[in-house]
Amino acid sequence: MKFILLVAHGSRNSNANEEIKQLALRVEEFAALQDTAVVCAFLEFEQPDIVAGIDLCAGRGARHITVVPYFLAAGNHVVRDIPAQLEQARQNYPDIDIEQSPHVGSVEAMAQAILSCVK
Amino acid sequence: MKFILLVAHGSRNSNANEEIKQLALRVEEFAALQDTAVVCAFLEFEQPDIVAGIDLCAGRGARHITVVPYFLAAGNHVVRDIPAQLEQARQNYPDIDIEQSPHVGSVEAMAQAILSCVK
Repeated sequence: MKFILLVAHGSRNSNANEEIKQLALRVEEFAALQDTAVVCAFLEFEQPDIVAGIDLCAGRGARHITVVPYFLAAGNHVVRDIPAQLEQARQNYPDIDIEQSPHVGSVEAMAQAILSCVK
Repeated sequence: MKFILLVAHGSRNSNANEEIKQLALRVEEFAALQDTAVVCAFLEFEQPDIVAGIDLCAGRGARHITVVPYFLAAGNHVVRDIPAQLEQARQNYPDIDIEQSPHVGSVEAMAQAILSCVK
């Protein structure tokens, strides 16, 4: 089984955090045929944080985790904060391959997502 | 011609703002066959702001503008700040139909965009 850790910023607004959790469930349904589990984590304001999110994946037997930054632009959170926390997680789990993917705002599929907002 | 005004938060980091401008160009290329123009605007830190972005669309002859919030969650920017600025823009252009779409984080295509981050 493959694991995706979807990392969002997190919000003081619990509805916004709930929206991320529901999205992770939708992605997992979407990826079910690919034998892929999706766990979410938050940089701020909500749990689990990244290290705890990696713990959850490890507890489910993950050998390889792709960490997807759910961010629209490559700001400091993407280029500095997430990599720093992943370094900590790798020390906790030296036998798990933990890889950070491009951030979601950078993928070609985003153009289609934007157009799908328009009737 | 249809117009999309892609509204991003904006950043103190000029690279992040440039990323949005490049994305707007990519979306326009993607939508070229649909005779759709794409203009971007920013809530903070970068120009044009929303009212100025609507000005740009109006100057190009827009009769209908779909405003797409380039936000991942329905926080205060989406539910309060963008609508307030659109109200001002509608007063400036009573003959233009200005409509706010769902935010990009809420569309089904986002699941595919997330999965496309993973090799």
